[in-house]
Amino acid sequence: MTIASSFIRLCRQIVGDANVIADPALLRVYECDALAAYTQLPDLVVLPDSVEQIPALLRLCHTHQIPVVARGAGTGLSGGALPVPGGIVLGLAKLNRILDIDPINRTATVQAGVRNLAISEAARPHGLYYAPDPSSQIACSIGGNIAENAGGVHCLKYGLTVHNVLQIKLATITGELLTLGGSGLDGAGYDLLALAIGSEGLLGVVVEATLRLLPTPPRVQVLLAAFATIEQAGAAVADIIGAGLIPAGLELMDNAAIRATEAFVHAGYPVEAAAILLCELDGQPEQVDADLARAEALLRAAGASELRVAADAAQRQRFWAGRKAAFPAVGRIASDYYCMDGTIPRRHLAAVLAEIAALAERYGLSVVNVFHAGDGNLHPLILYDAGRPGDFDKAEALGGDILELCVRVGGTITGEHGVGHEKLPQMCVQFQAAELEQFHALKQAFDPNGLLNPGKAVPTLHRCAELGKMHVHGGRLPHPELERF
Amino acid sequence: MTIASSFIRLCRQIVGDANVIADPALLRVYECDALAAYTQLPDLVVLPDSVEQIPALLRLCHTHQIPVVARGAGTGLSGGALPVPGGIVLGLAKLNRILDIDPINRTATVQAGVRNLAISEAARPHGLYYAPDPSSQIACSIGGNIAENAGGVHCLKYGLTVHNVLQIKLATITGELLTLGGSGLDGAGYDLLALAIGSEGLLGVVVEATLRLLPTPPRVQVLLAAFATIEQAGAAVADIIGAGLIPAGLELMDNAAIRATEAFVHAGYPVEAAAILLCELDGQPEQVDADLARAEALLRAAGASELRVAADAAQRQRFWAGRKAAFPAVGRIASDYYCMDGTIPRRHLAAVLAEIAALAERYGLSVVNVFHAGDGNLHPLILYDAGRPGDFDKAEALGGDILELCVRVGGTITGEHGVGHEKLPQMCVQFQAAELEQFHALKQAFDPNGLLNPGKAVPTLHRCAELGKMHVHGGRLPHPELERF
Repeated sequence: MTIASSFIRLCRQIVGDANVIADPALLRVYECDALAAYTQLPDLVVLPDSVEQIPALLRLCHTHQIPVVARGAGTGLSGGALPVPGGIVLGLAKLNRILDIDPINRTATVQAGVRNLAISEAARPHGLYYAPDPSSQIACSIGGNIAENAGGVHCLKYGLTVHNVLQIKLATITGELLTLGGSGLDGAGYDLLALAIGSEGLLGVVVEATLRLLPTPPRVQVLLAAFATIEQAGAAVADIIGAGLIPAGLELMDNAAIRATEAFVHAGYPVEAAAILLCELDGQPEQVDADLARAEALLRAAGASELRVAADAAQRQRFWAGRKAAFPAVGRIASDYYCMDGTIPRRHLAAVLAEIAALAERYGLSVVNVFHAGDGNLHPLILYDAGRPGDFDKAEALGGDILELCVRVGGTITGEHGVGHEKLPQMCVQFQAAELEQFHALKQAFDPNGLLNPGKAVPTLHRCAELGKMHVHGGRLPHPELERF
Repeated sequence: MTIASSFIRLCRQIVGDANVIADPALLRVYECDALAAYTQLPDLVVLPDSVEQIPALLRLCHTHQIPVVARGAGTGLSGGALPVPGGIVLGLAKLNRILDIDPINRTATVQAGVRNLAISEAARPHGLYYAPDPSSQIACSIGGNIAENAGGVHCLKYGLTVHNVLQIKLATITGELLTLGGSGLDGAGYDLLALAIGSEGLLGVVVEATLRLLPTPPRVQVLLAAFATIEQAGAAVADIIGAGLIPAGLELMDNAAIRATEAFVHAGYPVEAAAILLCELDGQPEQVDADLARAEALLRAAGASELRVAADAAQRQRFWAGRKAAFPAVGRIASDYYCMDGTIPRRHLAAVLAEIAALAERYGLSVVNVFHAGDGNLHPLILYDAGRPGDFDKAEALGGDILELCVRVGGTITGEHGVGHEKLPQMCVQFQAAELEQFHALKQAFDPNGLLNPGKAVPTLHRCAELGKMHVHGGRLPHPELERF
């Protein structure tokens, strides 16, 4: 299936020749997102450079029944921006204007292609910042963040993207531009804003967003706690949250992650520890000081073998440098790794990590753990060798097992990366048929011909039946603890 | 249009004879909700006493094409539970079981008819509570709270219902029971949980909910600040929020509200003040002490003529007793009042209050203001006399004008009461045709025959055209301040 040259000509009329890519050598750049294990050469890439072009392009695609895959910076980790044969990739990178920073309302209004970090940089002169901070924040764009409901280290305290977006402009497949959300806490009508956030490009294309900015906290402290067992570290996380503390970040790294990181960036981590926790506290000075004392006491009581408070900003940055470099550090010890993303109730942390290790051993693969422990968002990194035939298939199968384990203990198959192409089989485990049917009905209400990012995020019931996954388990809240796993 | 006796018999088979009301004298109780200006005698009321009966009832209604109006405690203020001719009222009051209080996960799982306050009472032995606290919390039910996305004094800090619900079970019109949401921050699939919350019974019937509980804050302080002008009070609100303080509650009462309240409950309010602010701070002791000092300084700098900190729990309760009794207090000075509900950007507070006063004078009516100033959620109480012909019509027209004023300054037509029957005309002002069309398409995805609460919340485009309201204004974020009003 190729795209007719007449259609390409119409695209050129809308966005200009320079903004259409049809040359296979140049198209190669767009064959995958950051989940590079899945590739598909696109037929055509269109790169609008004004918001007005997008409804026109979508209307054109609707008229010609051409599928559309929206793409931000291509940093997604679930294959959400994987091209579709016979479709176009709608790249939003050129929509990179910051339209307004409003210090009184504490809002930023930006185009979809603006990079996450650029928003905080623009807000900094006003003492403000944009809270959600995915690891890719230097590169990833707000449009992609919204499509995937991105998180980050600080979402434990400040929420995911959905909690920090006030309004979006969403272009529909028929070329309408909807304004969703507003400045108030509540709004009239159905909550289409929340619905659109995390909808992975299946309902419309985000072209502009108004975001909530927060005041830069006047004091920040970081604690590093080392533990002799991973169970202790997991229990300490539950203790901290159970005590009513809400750290700005609460990250766990296991021994393999500590060693890989230390060898790479020399952050000063204790390499003998089974696990470390990094606990960041921020806010007003009085509150941070009080919280720090409580956190220290809790971590000590939980059996921390070592406890360090960053003495100054430099040491704080050094503590975080290790965590932030953990993924590339793991990249140095394995030829390839596959980063999973699932969420579990915190109290199951230790048991799930043990079960993941057992699963990995069964597959003959290694797993490194470095993740957002405070909100139970796991990121097991499965090490494999793409050059060894069958190795990725094993990694993929192990990843699937890990996600299904998350569902079994009452969790979900995504914490912040989305479902994309990657997690379709596990959607059949997470949801019952009636829920999947409702998803499809809802999709119909936005995109009856299924042109927007087809084949992603929500599997057909037929596909679930083929996979034999349907109804394996419906276990989620309210009583996951009653279920054996 | 009446309901066939054969249908009534089928209802009796599902819920039992005692749970079906068809006697006109008894039906009278259900002719309105707390917005008693609009009434409609229902044809039939069905009161299921088990969750399982609800899908069966909805399936029956679907088969026989009978409209369904779900009703919680009937405390709604926008006519959302107003019966529909030829339809049934599905009363959920008998579903009043608290299924689980989980102190480790800090969740409560309850049936839809459980009263809001009963949840906090059940959680209290664990040092926990449920944060959203509508004025009607002693009576209103969680199902109704979810349907209307209810707020309350404390939603400034703790969010509306949507921010405090983790999971719901939603019965669809075809009798499916969907489980929406889960324990994690993020979830896979479209965010049907957020979509269902605030959907006013148009998409399905909530039968069960799992709610987030919060630890009771160890310290609470309440400040009362009096101002010689309402402009100063409005500016003080902006100053407090602008300084990064997030009070647990920040309420404004104007002179008429102060006088009415003081005459009723003798809370010790300064009756000469043009306005008072009640500012509640809660949290860890160190934080509350620091915040209190900052709030005092800010209020003094904003020109407070008097500043009192409640000395103890008794005085704190006395300060709040006035605010909480404000509505009945106003009920003593007027034969009837109509409580409006709109939200505006905080910085427009003073100007909008002045404009409301001017509008009221034009209509020859009085307005009393007592509202959630911190989040810009206005509740003008329009005084009228239901016994005087035409008086309610004037009040209704003034209310409509006030809501349209809210939209004009970049706000919304609801803060926490929903649209219901009341605000249909203003929906045409708030939204453009494309957005309303998208709402209808979405409704189709859940309820293609329009049986769930028909005629509420979202007007048809035809109705908007009739009202001549369409496209009067689309002014919302991001740049309302550029617009004159």
